[in-house]
Amino acid sequence: MEKLSPVLTEREENFIRSHRIAHMATADQTGKPHVVPICYAYEGGCLYSVIDEKPKKVAPDKLKRVRNIESNPQVALVIDDYDEDWSRLGFVLIQGNAQILPMGTEQQRAIKLLREKYPQYQTMVLEDKPIIKITPISVRSWGAI
Amino acid sequence: MEKLSPVLTEREENFIRSHRIAHMATADQTGKPHVVPICYAYEGGCLYSVIDEKPKKVAPDKLKRVRNIESNPQVALVIDDYDEDWSRLGFVLIQGNAQILPMGTEQQRAIKLLREKYPQYQTMVLEDKPIIKITPISVRSWGAI
Repeated sequence: MEKLSPVLTEREENFIRSHRIAHMATADQTGKPHVVPICYAYEGGCLYSVIDEKPKKVAPDKLKRVRNIESNPQVALVIDDYDEDWSRLGFVLIQGNAQILPMGTEQQRAIKLLREKYPQYQTMVLEDKPIIKITPISVRSWGAI
Repeated sequence: MEKLSPVLTEREENFIRSHRIAHMATADQTGKPHVVPICYAYEGGCLYSVIDEKPKKVAPDKLKRVRNIESNPQVALVIDDYDEDWSRLGFVLIQGNAQILPMGTEQQRAIKLLREKYPQYQTMVLEDKPIIKITPISVRSWGAI
């Protein structure tokens, strides 16, 4: 596929496209970190994740990851393989900026991409859900990617 | 097994013990987050990870995770299951403090525990490697743990 990012190599892009889950770290204004597994879609050099209906106890704008991004847009995201054969370990670590996309053209496009990648999203109501958009600034990869 | 932690439930402890990999987030003094997959051992309510020989380009004390912990001991760590059946998703998210243990009794004990859990460590020279010790402060779990 076409290389889309100015900071990711083609191999890193393929690794990102071929994986289903990432782990995203955010931090609040005091530097207290937070980390969650996320589903994501990749397009145009950016990653998109939706604040979906997987049971959450609080409204989307109250989620810790969202509050952290609103007060500190710096995020880190790692996509990796674990294997008991440690010669097969590998990861792509992205540091970048995140923003919350409210309803609109880019948010609807991201939902379409997420539904193409994850059939599980096809039966969820997502149209009104905010999207986290991550723009990579620096990337480091390691091991067998 | 005996419940060891004042902040983790028995179910959370069992989930932690039965998993092989965690994702640990740190942040530097400016609040810039970092996240890496780690192997860990659990004992006495704490998690231990070694700065091991898996190829690193820099010396242990220069690693980003170590420099972040030295300047900001707050960490977050998530252990989770991904499954295409999303009713089987689950995670345990720990926020706590980390410290770097230099060579000594607790560091040697942690290496022994790590070698018991991961046979891959048995052929690595770890005796002189620092240990990251994570003491949980708060825990949140979600889904099918």
